[in-house]
Amino acid sequence: MDTKWTIAVDAMGGDNAPKSVIEGLNIVYNVLIENNISLLLFGDYKVLAPYLLKYPNINNISTVVQCDEVVQGDDKPSKIIRRGRNTSMWKAIEAVRNKEADAVISGGNTGCLMGLAKILISMIGGIKRPAITTFIPTKSGGSAMLDLGANTECDENNILDFAIMGSVYVKTLLEKENSTVGILNIGTEAGKGLEYLTKAENIFANLSEKLPFKYNGFIEGNDILEGKVDVIVTDGFSGNIALKSIEGTARFIKTSLKNIFKSSLLSMLGYILLYKSFKKLKTKIDPSKYNGAVLLGLNGIVVKSHGGADAIGFSNAVTYTIKLLTNNFIPEIGRITNLIK
Amino acid sequence: MDTKWTIAVDAMGGDNAPKSVIEGLNIVYNVLIENNISLLLFGDYKVLAPYLLKYPNINNISTVVQCDEVVQGDDKPSKIIRRGRNTSMWKAIEAVRNKEADAVISGGNTGCLMGLAKILISMIGGIKRPAITTFIPTKSGGSAMLDLGANTECDENNILDFAIMGSVYVKTLLEKENSTVGILNIGTEAGKGLEYLTKAENIFANLSEKLPFKYNGFIEGNDILEGKVDVIVTDGFSGNIALKSIEGTARFIKTSLKNIFKSSLLSMLGYILLYKSFKKLKTKIDPSKYNGAVLLGLNGIVVKSHGGADAIGFSNAVTYTIKLLTNNFIPEIGRITNLIK
Repeated sequence: MDTKWTIAVDAMGGDNAPKSVIEGLNIVYNVLIENNISLLLFGDYKVLAPYLLKYPNINNISTVVQCDEVVQGDDKPSKIIRRGRNTSMWKAIEAVRNKEADAVISGGNTGCLMGLAKILISMIGGIKRPAITTFIPTKSGGSAMLDLGANTECDENNILDFAIMGSVYVKTLLEKENSTVGILNIGTEAGKGLEYLTKAENIFANLSEKLPFKYNGFIEGNDILEGKVDVIVTDGFSGNIALKSIEGTARFIKTSLKNIFKSSLLSMLGYILLYKSFKKLKTKIDPSKYNGAVLLGLNGIVVKSHGGADAIGFSNAVTYTIKLLTNNFIPEIGRITNLIK
Repeated sequence: MDTKWTIAVDAMGGDNAPKSVIEGLNIVYNVLIENNISLLLFGDYKVLAPYLLKYPNINNISTVVQCDEVVQGDDKPSKIIRRGRNTSMWKAIEAVRNKEADAVISGGNTGCLMGLAKILISMIGGIKRPAITTFIPTKSGGSAMLDLGANTECDENNILDFAIMGSVYVKTLLEKENSTVGILNIGTEAGKGLEYLTKAENIFANLSEKLPFKYNGFIEGNDILEGKVDVIVTDGFSGNIALKSIEGTARFIKTSLKNIFKSSLLSMLGYILLYKSFKKLKTKIDPSKYNGAVLLGLNGIVVKSHGGADAIGFSNAVTYTIKLLTNNFIPEIGRITNLIK
């Protein structure tokens, strides 16, 4: 095979790894082949071997890089940064740094993945800070929100960078050309909230003709799921709190509904009648549909698959990665940033 | 009647005012009487008269103060602060400033109410900044969260003040003596997130024996509805975004469920069977149960009833106000603050 791109895969990362990883790769095998993509699998060969035997297709396009250690779910980034050189996660990221791979996917510890990636991989020229993004299911399909926790504090220039990267992200993954951007704030009137957000609005106004997106103003927490904009930009502190508040509320309601269904025979019967519809709703707001948080701004694609993802969830993260690669996502961010700045 | 306390009521504030206001007061008439509470009703006498004729009980304990103007829902605080002297909201707040009333309740424009109250009413000694709080329905009943938007930026001393006020608030309204407090952050490990939050942790540790609460560490957005702590403290920017994200998610899921129920005959039948249980859930997470956001830190009780509240919702806000008055809420904050600082 004439390799065009190489994806480094942390085969040991995630609750169901390496099973979900290898099976997930196998689900999208045809797409990998069509796009001339090779794999570097980082992990313990003894653990991976049974799965590679089971999926010879994947074995054929893969090179296993033996790693004796695995980052654990409760490992602190500071520890891994000091002593994690032999972990599958470190070595997978290092492959991107060393240009042996174009992208890295891991379902392992988020903090460690983001921390290591920020340290090991250089930034795209013109972008000052990396940002974590993901798609959030909304009324109109899905919106990208960033930053979700890479930066606790931001300034107006970071907000501009996030808006540029978010709009290129949406263009690449959703094939949406004229995306809309909103800034998360605590009111929609001009001048509301933190001062640097108003400064960011002014930058957007001054650059408006050069921008690859349409700026739609401030949006509030209760607008996030309304799908009013394609890209929601925010500092990593507020973004993280908003995302987790949404997740917590969904979980709270889900648990409350479950208790209701179990509360009486009549309720159980009602639940059975509604079962199909509930399943549809679950699919609509299923996080695995949008599996893949991406660390934007680095000179290499860094995709975090959900720790609890199954093979289908992991395959979605791989699909994202392939789309970002084949649409030249990173060169495009560089090109747009150069045009603007 | 031997008046012990006086509540100033903005009788014109809220979507259903003055009907919901006078009817709401009538619902808790006995409690008002038992506690020797008189009312000052601020509004247009012509508009109020029919309701006062209908509820002579309320008329007997009320004095109407004629106000020719009403703050509108879309009025900006800056405008009302400059030109709102003749509105029912301004005059009601002014009554607290002039010691003619001990508390003020309004269902009107939140931004204007908070803005006017901050300007007109002095602070409790030792408290630097006011904070908006409300109860959030959780698995374990309800938690108070503050600040929800009075301050876009905070420091570690504000966080301490919020924790003191929140714990006295919980003690007064829920009769909970040893309340627990958590700081909203983007991770639970020590040193995570914004620097001043770690400084606040250190202050809590140094003062621990003097504090009227138990500090339980950082909590994340997805923990808010878990009810892990009685009081959640945060800056007003993050608090506002968290609260609105929760509200938006609940609304999103509610709409999605409604659409499901209407999607087929079978679903409708299922919904009918589950109707009672859904109603129970709605009551559990009904905002009007906890109707009343309170602006803490001022030398007077300032209660914001939900703009859309009906008579029952408004009566809940009055019940809160009465509890805060009769339990000497404000002197208690002053006492505890003096002990600590």
